[in-house]
Amino acid sequence: MRNLLVAQSGGPTAAINATLAGVLQGVRASGKVDKVYGAKNGIEGAIKDQLIDLNEIIRDTKSMDTLSYTPSSALGTCRYKMKDWRKDDEPYKKIVETFYKYDIKYFIYIGGNDSMDTVDKLSEYCKLNNHDFIIMGAPKTVDNDLNLTDHSPGFGSAAKYIATTISELACDIGAYDIPAVTIVEIMGRNAGWLTASAALSRVNGNSGADLIYLCEKDFDNARFINDVKEKLAQKPGVLVAVSEGVKDSNGAYVSDQISSGAVDNFGHKYIAGAARALEQLVRNEIGCKVRSIELNLMQRAAAHIASETDIIESLMLGQKALSCALDGETGRMAAIKRLSDMPYRVEFVSVPVNEVANHEKIVPMNWITPDGHDVTEELVAYMKPLIQGETNVKYENGIPIQIKLY
Amino acid sequence: MRNLLVAQSGGPTAAINATLAGVLQGVRASGKVDKVYGAKNGIEGAIKDQLIDLNEIIRDTKSMDTLSYTPSSALGTCRYKMKDWRKDDEPYKKIVETFYKYDIKYFIYIGGNDSMDTVDKLSEYCKLNNHDFIIMGAPKTVDNDLNLTDHSPGFGSAAKYIATTISELACDIGAYDIPAVTIVEIMGRNAGWLTASAALSRVNGNSGADLIYLCEKDFDNARFINDVKEKLAQKPGVLVAVSEGVKDSNGAYVSDQISSGAVDNFGHKYIAGAARALEQLVRNEIGCKVRSIELNLMQRAAAHIASETDIIESLMLGQKALSCALDGETGRMAAIKRLSDMPYRVEFVSVPVNEVANHEKIVPMNWITPDGHDVTEELVAYMKPLIQGETNVKYENGIPIQIKLY
Repeated sequence: MRNLLVAQSGGPTAAINATLAGVLQGVRASGKVDKVYGAKNGIEGAIKDQLIDLNEIIRDTKSMDTLSYTPSSALGTCRYKMKDWRKDDEPYKKIVETFYKYDIKYFIYIGGNDSMDTVDKLSEYCKLNNHDFIIMGAPKTVDNDLNLTDHSPGFGSAAKYIATTISELACDIGAYDIPAVTIVEIMGRNAGWLTASAALSRVNGNSGADLIYLCEKDFDNARFINDVKEKLAQKPGVLVAVSEGVKDSNGAYVSDQISSGAVDNFGHKYIAGAARALEQLVRNEIGCKVRSIELNLMQRAAAHIASETDIIESLMLGQKALSCALDGETGRMAAIKRLSDMPYRVEFVSVPVNEVANHEKIVPMNWITPDGHDVTEELVAYMKPLIQGETNVKYENGIPIQIKLY
Repeated sequence: MRNLLVAQSGGPTAAINATLAGVLQGVRASGKVDKVYGAKNGIEGAIKDQLIDLNEIIRDTKSMDTLSYTPSSALGTCRYKMKDWRKDDEPYKKIVETFYKYDIKYFIYIGGNDSMDTVDKLSEYCKLNNHDFIIMGAPKTVDNDLNLTDHSPGFGSAAKYIATTISELACDIGAYDIPAVTIVEIMGRNAGWLTASAALSRVNGNSGADLIYLCEKDFDNARFINDVKEKLAQKPGVLVAVSEGVKDSNGAYVSDQISSGAVDNFGHKYIAGAARALEQLVRNEIGCKVRSIELNLMQRAAAHIASETDIIESLMLGQKALSCALDGETGRMAAIKRLSDMPYRVEFVSVPVNEVANHEKIVPMNWITPDGHDVTEELVAYMKPLIQGETNVKYENGIPIQIKLY
């Protein structure tokens, strides 16, 4: 029997700790692993020999449960991209050294695209150098842009936060009877999945997002202003959801296009988001009351309104990654395969990590409505199951309980 | 037996509909009122004769319950300030006309400072002109700045959202090990209560807001940069909470002071919030990674994480306002009197509305720490009971159920 190392990487989500908890549950259920270490700040912890003993910290069921509902990466995270070992094998040697030092047989890396690239490179390096380590990936990303998995854990919780928040904002905005435009900027540089989830605000038939612009589709200022004017003719409060990464037909970010000339009193360039740029555009072109809102880090951190479906699937993916590792699979990633929408059924599989790494799954064009400012029913049907259910998050003194690992 | 009119005014909150539900509950319990009308968009609905029959809409217990958990003003709102009737009595005449037309005896106005000014002026006008109407106020404001009430309904829910969100942001920020400053802007032009509630993020001993700046205290750029540097020396991720209304010792808004020179490509002035201005300042003076976040409308609309204490008190204030009205009180406001912090006990009273209108209750200076960048234990003890408990909000299709009155 040998030990296991687990680490988390990339942008945090509300569900990434549930996957960690899933790994720990799998370890206990299997009885085939001795010690479980966590690397601090992703692969950097393995390179720098900064491990913590998770058996010592997560001792009881309550801690495991709290971990599942604690947002962000409890082990810390990093944005470290492994270089090709043919060019620089120093980090690889360091990692292998750490593995031997702690008698680690299994390494599970929870993360997104870059992390799967690490899993890919590291597993290949180990094979070529006859190091008998098992290296498995477990997916996470709010962006939902991972290849070969029906959807990415973390997305459902972010989508539930976004849908709920947009529906609440629609109530707020709808209380006024003067013309006003509210533009909500949602994460996504290249993939508009999160912005698309704004459509779920209307799932019960109430007001929600009136116009939705994904970054997959060329953004046209004149068409946007027309769309807004049309909506304003129907109702006073218009709510727009827009991807942070919307670009014009030349590929230039909308934010740059509008704000590039602005400097502050110190002569520094202003950094405006897409919504802020569009706020200026509406002010200039329409002249009505206008406001921009960025959902910012809240959309990936709001564990208090995590999706139960997402949290359970995230747990299961941790268990699946462990199960595959114990079966001797390496260089692969645990993934979700959807069997049906209604009833919603999935199974957990493993996929080759080299087909996940460095790919980006964007929203298909035929899931954007022809008018370019909404999403289709098919896309709604795809997303809807992912936000179902509320978690059993516990509160103390009025705020959710969280766990700190170090 | 005669009829009752109820209306909502000012900035929406997550609890203002609970007060409306409280009025409706009181009506049913008393059996002393026949029809209940709601005025659309506050007092403007009474002026313009735009009433809806609430008995027709809120028929069952479930609707009443859903109303309590629906954010924003379900009757619509306005920002209408009544002029002195000696200068312009036209709106007063219109309101009185509407009252007679619908056989209205009781008018309950749910709102903040301006709304209490309306209650004050209207009740005085009616008395002087021998119109036998009863006009009562019920308080609401996320800002918690209403006089003569221990706290304002709506504040507790906003504070719970802020405390929870800041604690979640602290998890997100804490996952990185590179120096970074995150500045969160919180509502409050003159009263820093909501910003103070960021301190509740630390109530369970975890990380939360590291520095808190209320608008009551003169803001000093150099001292702020020093504070941030000191915190950065202790930990990589520093989280700052700041009132939107922070001003320097000359009374100039921090946002204006820093951003006044900025114009966009169209030559229009940039409107920067306090956090965005401070983001630029940190970028210029410290040069580390820095980000600004505005909690924007979410902090007053996030009914999904409303405080149970707040919602119940808001309901009770609606009932109290009705009860006072039925007892013949006019020109007064229902209010909360705190009896003790631990155990938390309150009673519901009525207070003269002319002592509420046009006053602003700000955070006392002795509840801000001497170093100027945090709040005292006394202030935490005052706020803590107000965020206790979670509501029984119901979900459908993954998002909270809401009611629409028209």
